[in-house]
Amino acid sequence: MAIPKALKSRINALKLGIGDTRERFFLGEGLTVIREGINSGWFPRWLIVSEENVERYSSVIAQLSSKVEIYVVDKKEMKEISTLETPPGIIGIFPKREISLSDGNIFVIVDGLQDPGNLGTIIRTADAVGANGVVVLKGSIDPYNHKVVRGSMGSIFHIPVVKVEEVESFFNSIKDKYLIIGTSSYGEKLYYDVSWRFPLALIFGSEARGLSKEVERFCDTIVRIPIFGKAESLNVAVACGIILYEVVRKV
Amino acid sequence: MAIPKALKSRINALKLGIGDTRERFFLGEGLTVIREGINSGWFPRWLIVSEENVERYSSVIAQLSSKVEIYVVDKKEMKEISTLETPPGIIGIFPKREISLSDGNIFVIVDGLQDPGNLGTIIRTADAVGANGVVVLKGSIDPYNHKVVRGSMGSIFHIPVVKVEEVESFFNSIKDKYLIIGTSSYGEKLYYDVSWRFPLALIFGSEARGLSKEVERFCDTIVRIPIFGKAESLNVAVACGIILYEVVRKV
Repeated sequence: MAIPKALKSRINALKLGIGDTRERFFLGEGLTVIREGINSGWFPRWLIVSEENVERYSSVIAQLSSKVEIYVVDKKEMKEISTLETPPGIIGIFPKREISLSDGNIFVIVDGLQDPGNLGTIIRTADAVGANGVVVLKGSIDPYNHKVVRGSMGSIFHIPVVKVEEVESFFNSIKDKYLIIGTSSYGEKLYYDVSWRFPLALIFGSEARGLSKEVERFCDTIVRIPIFGKAESLNVAVACGIILYEVVRKV
Repeated sequence: MAIPKALKSRINALKLGIGDTRERFFLGEGLTVIREGINSGWFPRWLIVSEENVERYSSVIAQLSSKVEIYVVDKKEMKEISTLETPPGIIGIFPKREISLSDGNIFVIVDGLQDPGNLGTIIRTADAVGANGVVVLKGSIDPYNHKVVRGSMGSIFHIPVVKVEEVESFFNSIKDKYLIIGTSSYGEKLYYDVSWRFPLALIFGSEARGLSKEVERFCDTIVRIPIFGKAESLNVAVACGIILYEVVRKV
């Protein structure tokens, strides 16, 4: 069955990131992402498989066939739809969900983070340490961008990821209860000298500009990771991994 | 002055990664990478700047003008040459160098690593902890691929990065002196339970397949990072950061 024209233009808009924010759907491509969605009870609304991969993905197709509209396309059409140079041959269009945060031990907050791969990796690492959610402050890349979803390797289906537009009121709502720690190359304290405690909100800033002034003033402390060699800084997703693993071992 | 045709086709080949291995040059795009090259005394052979950015990059141009062939191109031509969707407007074509490793405290080794961003980030992190070199075993992405160079944020100019084709003879040459630790999700020991000591060779495997059998048999121990949540694994560059920072604090 051919893909309806409306679905095709929806996919194109999602690929370009047009209307990411208002769109009610997002793209998840490749088996890992789709499988993690299904395992979390988060089913795609539509599934598209290239014909030469139907057998390879037969168990996913069987699992979804009664719940989801499935389209089988030829190689050329898959190439057009895919977000990747080498299409894995399976792509799901997932509905967004209303997600809210409940209380927890650790929240990871990103402030002005622009790189989708970095945000995806941060979501994956937050999931790996068992964090309770990722908060994406305004000015950051949309967490439903297909590159973020891919970088998360499906972790976006495992832990709550929420966007926050009202930065000030968000911090006002957590500041009495949570230890709020910012991270930055000019942080005053080394990350291993902090008395980590739960509940904790850990903030990572933009790759280029670090933390915004608006966010900095809510931080109880700003910490840094020391650099011993000639690199100017660490990749933000690497920094997040180093600090999160320090925290979960220490607390 | 127009870019000579031969240089243009050289750039195209480098962009596509054709002949990466035999090419005597590599691309470094953007101010950070070029500045780190210059600061390390590693000058580009050619520098191309888009005309609307000549003023912005005037100090780099002044620094290089007596040593390097510089071409100023229009926006359209820069767009054609650039490896990036949004060209920063400056690109250098650097000569490769014969690099050899000398003895040191820490070497990071990658085995079958395919993702250029991950390798670039690993080189950057190795530089940040002051490691003595990065060894790229056969079957991995070429470290001079432009995406690796970019991901390294110029760290490829700071520390020795060498390719090794003869895996067995390489490990035979280090195994009596170095503690050789592999990392893998199925490692037998937790990374914080290891008695780390220098000199150390730390190996990270392919994103998809982990360590190769050939490499595993040279490992004194294989370590893992525990996963507390639902993520299947960590990104390899994040794992590298977590372990390297553990090592430099413990030894």
